Amino acid sequence: MIVVKIGGAQGVNLDAVCQDIAGCVKQGRQVVVVHGGSAETNEISTQLGHPPRFVTSTSGFTSRYTDRTTLEIFAMVTNGKINTLVVERLQKFGVNAFGLSGVDGRMMLAQRKDAIRVVENGRVMMLRDDFTGKIESVSAALLQMLLQAGLTPVVSPLAVSPAGEALNVDADRAAAMVAGALKVDELIILTNVPGLMRQFPDESTLIPHLPKAGLEQALSFAEGRMKKKVLGASEALAFGVGKIIFADGRVEQPLSNALAGHGTVIS
Amino acid sequence: MIVVKIGGAQGVNLDAVCQDIAGCVKQGRQVVVVHGGSAETNEISTQLGHPPRFVTSTSGFTSRYTDRTTLEIFAMVTNGKINTLVVERLQKFGVNAFGLSGVDGRMMLAQRKDAIRVVENGRVMMLRDDFTGKIESVSAALLQMLLQAGLTPVVSPLAVSPAGEALNVDADRAAAMVAGALKVDELIILTNVPGLMRQFPDESTLIPHLPKAGLEQALSFAEGRMKKKVLGASEALAFGVGKIIFADGRVEQPLSNALAGHGTVIS
Repeated sequence: MIVVKIGGAQGVNLDAVCQDIAGCVKQGRQVVVVHGGSAETNEISTQLGHPPRFVTSTSGFTSRYTDRTTLEIFAMVTNGKINTLVVERLQKFGVNAFGLSGVDGRMMLAQRKDAIRVVENGRVMMLRDDFTGKIESVSAALLQMLLQAGLTPVVSPLAVSPAGEALNVDADRAAAMVAGALKVDELIILTNVPGLMRQFPDESTLIPHLPKAGLEQALSFAEGRMKKKVLGASEALAFGVGKIIFADGRVEQPLSNALAGHGTVIS
Repeated sequence: MIVVKIGGAQGVNLDAVCQDIAGCVKQGRQVVVVHGGSAETNEISTQLGHPPRFVTSTSGFTSRYTDRTTLEIFAMVTNGKINTLVVERLQKFGVNAFGLSGVDGRMMLAQRKDAIRVVENGRVMMLRDDFTGKIESVSAALLQMLLQAGLTPVVSPLAVSPAGEALNVDADRAAAMVAGALKVDELIILTNVPGLMRQFPDESTLIPHLPKAGLEQALSFAEGRMKKKVLGASEALAFGVGKIIFADGRVEQPLSNALAGHGTVIS
């Protein structure tokens, strides 16, 4: 079984990814898809007069500040538009895809970060009313039920708090948690870059293989959103995932390419 | 088992409906929810610069003209925003709700109406490139799988064509088809009116009971969107649903109220 994370950033060739997933499924391989949606959420929230706001935590991670209006736009775009269109595209390629978010059937339970410490203009501030969560558990049983029914789950990055609130969660870490819960052999993270680079964006510094021991150091040179992917990879390894591959989602046959070892293989 | 259709029109008391559904589920009754989303789709598509366009078919039914952009907005709003928020609200009331559309797992298969004959300014025209469908089958097996896992399905009004295209379908007729496939005892249609009126909007002309034989005549006096509800009721009876109740979704305990026979009972 493999988990494929499709990046929400522009440039990923969604048609090629879905066609490649269809190829895998037809060969009898079970696939679970997890997708993001940040680029499109930014676009639509700006159009709706509620532009995105990003904050940097005191530990150096950047994330979306998710007030209630942003949460609803995020749910609308990721779970409505992107999820439905990925499911539709897979259906067109003959895959019986099934979309869900972590709110459905409490598939992903998360702790709400209701007060976050952020750094803005050099000052540390507390932000409240944030609907962002840290995933604590994933229901492998629910995903297995869908897989056993011959369905291909397509997961959008929302989780639910113990109180029943929908929460925005990081899609890379969601993919890592899903891969960990299902104890898959491979977690493929498709993005709009060829993999992890020692000196971003210089593609000649692509790291083809990163041993587990090198992950901590990688956190120091990984840029922006790549930081969370590295953190996710580290979590996935700890949960028993065989290997994680960061690979290029812009090329033809992006999944086969990744499975053949192109990109950054972490094991 | 009951199917509850929650209207997309303004005024329906979503909190009261969800709380009432939670009461039913806690008593051990299986519930399947179907919702609409027209009012909110109109609002958001207007905000996004793509205002809705309604057309009247030659047989007198009004429907949304759904070009590809409209389909994507419709999917975003109904399957992303409304569906997620209904699921969230039910989760808050302790119901393990699970959202899906008819595209997921091909739960609702529909025939695409790729060319529709409409009347505009007294002229008959053909409209093409429409992503609207007429549901032909509902997978009771898929819904039963979710129900048997202790989940409460919440269905948004999208179906899939044999070619894999996502299609906008009428939510009232979707509810009727779902109720028919599950052979439920009762189908409750909650709207922002007290039921079917002989002379809309005069509430003193509410029809408390309509026998099957009176449905055809009802089509002649039912106004606007009520026409499709009457058509759906007629289809549901033909599929073996025990009774259909059109009831007020604006009041407290709207579901218990409907189950107690308030509104228009069709049997």
